[in-house]
Amino acid sequence: MKKNNIFIKQITIVGPGLIGASIGLALKQKKIVGKVIGIDKNKKNLDDAIKKGCIDIGLSKINEKIADSDLFFLCTPVSQIEECIKKLLPFLKKGSIVTDVGSVKNIFSKKIFSDIRKVSDFIPGHPIAGTEFSGAKNATKGLFENKWCIITPENNPRKNVSKLKKVWETLGMRVSLMTAKEHDKIMSITSHLPHLIAFTIVGTAINHNNKVGKSLLNFSAGGFRDFTRIASSDAEMWRDIFLNNKNNVLDTLDEFINDLKKFRDLIDCNRSEDIYNFIKKAKTVRKKIIDLKQN
Amino acid sequence: MKKNNIFIKQITIVGPGLIGASIGLALKQKKIVGKVIGIDKNKKNLDDAIKKGCIDIGLSKINEKIADSDLFFLCTPVSQIEECIKKLLPFLKKGSIVTDVGSVKNIFSKKIFSDIRKVSDFIPGHPIAGTEFSGAKNATKGLFENKWCIITPENNPRKNVSKLKKVWETLGMRVSLMTAKEHDKIMSITSHLPHLIAFTIVGTAINHNNKVGKSLLNFSAGGFRDFTRIASSDAEMWRDIFLNNKNNVLDTLDEFINDLKKFRDLIDCNRSEDIYNFIKKAKTVRKKIIDLKQN
Repeated sequence: MKKNNIFIKQITIVGPGLIGASIGLALKQKKIVGKVIGIDKNKKNLDDAIKKGCIDIGLSKINEKIADSDLFFLCTPVSQIEECIKKLLPFLKKGSIVTDVGSVKNIFSKKIFSDIRKVSDFIPGHPIAGTEFSGAKNATKGLFENKWCIITPENNPRKNVSKLKKVWETLGMRVSLMTAKEHDKIMSITSHLPHLIAFTIVGTAINHNNKVGKSLLNFSAGGFRDFTRIASSDAEMWRDIFLNNKNNVLDTLDEFINDLKKFRDLIDCNRSEDIYNFIKKAKTVRKKIIDLKQN
Repeated sequence: MKKNNIFIKQITIVGPGLIGASIGLALKQKKIVGKVIGIDKNKKNLDDAIKKGCIDIGLSKINEKIADSDLFFLCTPVSQIEECIKKLLPFLKKGSIVTDVGSVKNIFSKKIFSDIRKVSDFIPGHPIAGTEFSGAKNATKGLFENKWCIITPENNPRKNVSKLKKVWETLGMRVSLMTAKEHDKIMSITSHLPHLIAFTIVGTAINHNNKVGKSLLNFSAGGFRDFTRIASSDAEMWRDIFLNNKNNVLDTLDEFINDLKKFRDLIDCNRSEDIYNFIKKAKTVRKKIIDLKQN
């Protein structure tokens, strides 16, 4: 065993859906956790999580049985996280760490950080991983391998931030620290806008009459299918993300609509060379992304 | 050998790029073609096509050496197809068939159809297949398997349409016949709009300052990377598509921008339930696409 390996006696995962259950599965597979408790009012999902070996014990709600946990992963839709922390407060062990996996980070009240700090530490996090499928039944132990995780430490003790960082790294993630504000701006561009577009383009397509509609589905290989893949993500989760990162999402969307209109005008005015250069530039960025991925 | 198998003595592929070279490769692999001639002024691409076994003979321009060909695939950017047919005219064998693979179909003059009909038959086609890579070096024999091909017969003799249909089916494609007008409307939604969006969102992203810019590339796994994949498609090809299907592209884009604005307003006004239903509906369409694919 390597010297810097970690071991956590007990963790609790609130909402062991795709992400939460995959965390449990990966931690257990790496043998760095003793006992994993999952909390979900959805009995079916809890059963799936146990059957797949993602959690050891399932509870339908937060109660004293979680009191021995050293680390908590809150994997609920973002709008429920703060409420969830309030429910955890009476049962938190001294020195434990609470983190979340939500896609919006600049949403927590100062009060919740100070309330929790008396016994524990809330360090927000966001593993950028997932598939278009949801629920524990789709959990995979390799979900986090070679992906990025962003941690937004809000004046948290450095020691605990390092500890959480280490957990994600053990699951194969590269970890980046930044402010919650930076995180939310970046995500509005790289994730929230693409999803918003995907949901919308599907709507634009189905507004067409049935005859064309059927053809749309048949001939979706030309680009449309890629867009619909991310459009099949969880509706509750994404509603929460758009509403909780509203300002950034609207700003980014407005920029994008302006850029679309500019491109529209280039086509409308037959500006052949400008169109060519516009597309060429996009191709260059793509190449940069591939190069980054390979490094 | 099955009774309904076909054999073509000689074919000519003008512009053996990704699509053209893959056609040659697939036809040769299925052993349903005698000799394949490729025409390209790009010497390097021609060499790649020969080296990969996509074509047997490479020519730098259209000349009398193609005169014995039974079938012609025109795989140039769409703006060059009609010009290309004019150059072919002096060398066309009686009873031969000319087709193309362009992404826009309602662009050919009546004159070109009647000019060619004296000796041959021009039957426009569009195999909906491709990758984000271009050139003969990326050709694959399985590129057309289980994909759709649209043929837009413009009063062409039924016999020749059937013959062309059979060729595509032999390469594993499902073939649909429709008018050029229908094709261009459908493609503006399922293919041209997704590409236009992909090119634009990459631009929106890189308009941000360098600090955020670097992060955008790092954290692109949340949806952005999927969009950049199709943004790395060939610039000349896509400029031609946008300009040649201008009316449909602009109409579809305007509808999409309107739909984006509606979604924007739902977020802006915190219309939680409407947002949820909007996303849910997109998910349903996605399911239909998957179901169709499995059938």
